Amino acid sequence: MIRDLSFKEVNVGDAAQLSKTISEADVYGFAGISMDFNPLHVDSEFAKTTRFEQRVAHGMLSASLISAVIGTSLPGRNTIYLGQTLKFTAPVFIGDTITARVEIVEKKDEKNILKLKTEVVKQDDTVVVEGEAVVMKK
Amino acid sequence: MIRDLSFKEVNVGDAAQLSKTISEADVYGFAGISMDFNPLHVDSEFAKTTRFEQRVAHGMLSASLISAVIGTSLPGRNTIYLGQTLKFTAPVFIGDTITARVEIVEKKDEKNILKLKTEVVKQDDTVVVEGEAVVMKK
Amino acid sequence: MIRDLSFKEVNVGDAAQLSKTISEADVYGFAGISMDFNPLHVDSEFAKTTRFEQRVAHGMLSASLISAVIGTSLPGRNTIYLGQTLKFTAPVFIGDTITARVEIVEKKDEKNILKLKTEVVKQDDTVVVEGEAVVMKK
Amino acid sequence: MIRDLSFKEVNVGDAAQLSKTISEADVYGFAGISMDFNPLHVDSEFAKTTRFEQRVAHGMLSASLISAVIGTSLPGRNTIYLGQTLKFTAPVFIGDTITARVEIVEKKDEKNILKLKTEVVKQDDTVVVEGEAVVMKK
Repeated sequence: MIRDLSFKEVNVGDAAQLSKTISEADVYGFAGISMDFNPLHVDSEFAKTTRFEQRVAHGMLSASLISAVIGTSLPGRNTIYLGQTLKFTAPVFIGDTITARVEIVEKKDEKNILKLKTEVVKQDDTVVVEGEAVVMKK
Repeated sequence: MIRDLSFKEVNVGDAAQLSKTISEADVYGFAGISMDFNPLHVDSEFAKTTRFEQRVAHGMLSASLISAVIGTSLPGRNTIYLGQTLKFTAPVFIGDTITARVEIVEKKDEKNILKLKTEVVKQDDTVVVEGEAVVMKK
Repeated sequence: MIRDLSFKEVNVGDAAQLSKTISEADVYGFAGISMDFNPLHVDSEFAKTTRFEQRVAHGMLSASLISAVIGTSLPGRNTIYLGQTLKFTAPVFIGDTITARVEIVEKKDEKNILKLKTEVVKQDDTVVVEGEAVVMKK
Repeated sequence: MIRDLSFKEVNVGDAAQLSKTISEADVYGFAGISMDFNPLHVDSEFAKTTRFEQRVAHGMLSASLISAVIGTSLPGRNTIYLGQTLKFTAPVFIGDTITARVEIVEKKDEKNILKLKTEVVKQDDTVVVEGEAVVMKK
């Protein structure tokens, strides 16, 4: 469902999330779109030589699920995405299931600005991305 | 060519960039991978009703080219991507050609940390994404 | 239809072909799979500065249709593809319709080897790829 | 990083390479773009009945990485790809990591023509594609 909540309808504490198991096709498709063929993402022989020991999904791929939650669920379409901070705190491997969660932490009434705490976690609750989004919503 | 520059080899002021014309296939592929099916990105009838008047590429798609430059060119593979701030300052439409530029603005020798100014611009030099990346490189 | 013609069933002069209009999505997908992000293929601003004046499809993309004809039609599946020569003689642009044609020009009975003349042409009959394939078929 | 080396800047003996683990998504994407739906590539039940016993990546997929190295690295963009010979010497399976290597073996000064030895090898150094490329570079 694509929601379209107005600024008035949302409140501090409201939260939403989306989950997905990251497939090899996701990582390869993302590499093709972004031109990010860092061998850590697409070369398993190279990846074995790193401390991760296997191919790692792009951090921006995980982060892109945050945008999905904001733009389809909270507050939904017609949201103006103004900014995002991201810390990449742990690797996501092919086959990991990640959940992007957003929670409204501040409403600035004068300009219809919302701040959201944003994080992406794996199936074992390891935080893989954390940060904050700033959006405008009518 | 995938570079792998050491911390010692890079200096404040070093810069690199990558360019791509954003195709409809990019936007749809990105939607499929990220689950970001905000109609602003994939519904041209809906998009006509917005102030943008046409489908807009995902901000995170543009941002993902920053990661491509960092991970393949400056400083290249074996870079640990620690964080990224993003401001989305203008829309990218299907058919726009974007260039992601990164420039080293600070070296913290004690921990092999680099700060990079990052921005994505369109063919007419409009800045569409701006921010800062923090990476670690041996 | 996927054919599977035996060595005995095919004769010098037999021919087959396949046609496709090359889409932007084909070119971008091919770039993503092959990692061939030569800006001539995916950067329309750069392409404008070249003698081609627009983005050009990968030569290997056109050539890959030759393999399609051989492996699905003449002689079909269970063909062992031994070799291919390719001359790239004209550019293919997004929107061009190309036809890959193969024709058996030699049968070497002792080793079940077939030589095929292979060419790819555009809608205006310009030859874009020409060469020869060598295959083995039982 | 996309290089653009001039004819004068490159020398016999110069070499470059690119590596990628071939995913199922690569093979299926390549099949969709090339229309090469030979069941050897996309039908695991059929593939079990062949001497390869599993699905095999398209030979042209492996070959396409040669074009990537030439067009982005040696000599880089603005190279005119004139011709390529290919021998397919061993199968590539899903999950194999392949490396495309090119090396300049001849410079023809009068016409700015370069000949390159081209080969694609797997993680165990098996040669899967070998041949020669001819390009023109200013």
